[in-house]
Amino acid sequence: MSKPLLPLLAEACTPVARAVMPDDEAAELARMFKAVGDPVRLKLLSMIASDPRGEACVCDLTEAFTLTGPTISHHLKVLRDAGLIASERRASWVYYRAVPEATARLSAVLAPLPAATA
Amino acid sequence: MSKPLLPLLAEACTPVARAVMPDDEAAELARMFKAVGDPVRLKLLSMIASDPRGEACVCDLTEAFTLTGPTISHHLKVLRDAGLIASERRASWVYYRAVPEATARLSAVLAPLPAATA
Repeated sequence: MSKPLLPLLAEACTPVARAVMPDDEAAELARMFKAVGDPVRLKLLSMIASDPRGEACVCDLTEAFTLTGPTISHHLKVLRDAGLIASERRASWVYYRAVPEATARLSAVLAPLPAATA
Repeated sequence: MSKPLLPLLAEACTPVARAVMPDDEAAELARMFKAVGDPVRLKLLSMIASDPRGEACVCDLTEAFTLTGPTISHHLKVLRDAGLIASERRASWVYYRAVPEATARLSAVLAPLPAATA
């Protein structure tokens, strides 16, 4: 409650096309990019972020892959630890939802500058 | 000349917030995200992409780090192999420039949907 997420995220955003990225920002963002630097995790993120219900059950996510449950859980943990998804346990299942502020931040970092498209 | 780069890049772009990403696209994009999933490579990309000359000499890039030349060269190769930067050798040095279409593509994949911000 004491740490508003959005202002913190917006604060540290240096588009690569604009300026040399400070070391601390590079370290933090690299961890997030590394989390999506895996085909399974990128697909999982898309399944969660595009789910029309606004969240996805780990049961449905696991079913979509030929991988084992523990492997999917590991990938979900990497995405969650990077701040790209959040989870909530309800009854027997864990439900995942995207954290749009986090993906938007990564998007902004790689976005072309307005002048570059002119 | 026979293969226009921009249409190909624009073709395979499924924002994660819109739909489940096809496997082949996930594999290709994950490789690109993995390339920026390292603090040194992310900083190198920002140094190259933000250089007001439009390109950066490997000599200047290497000077900015305490890492060895071969280590920097390795990171630059990963970025180049992922299509995020291009290189040109002139006289004694290699010069690197950003490939804005590639970073823009990654940016678009993680961008929020217009409706999501409403």
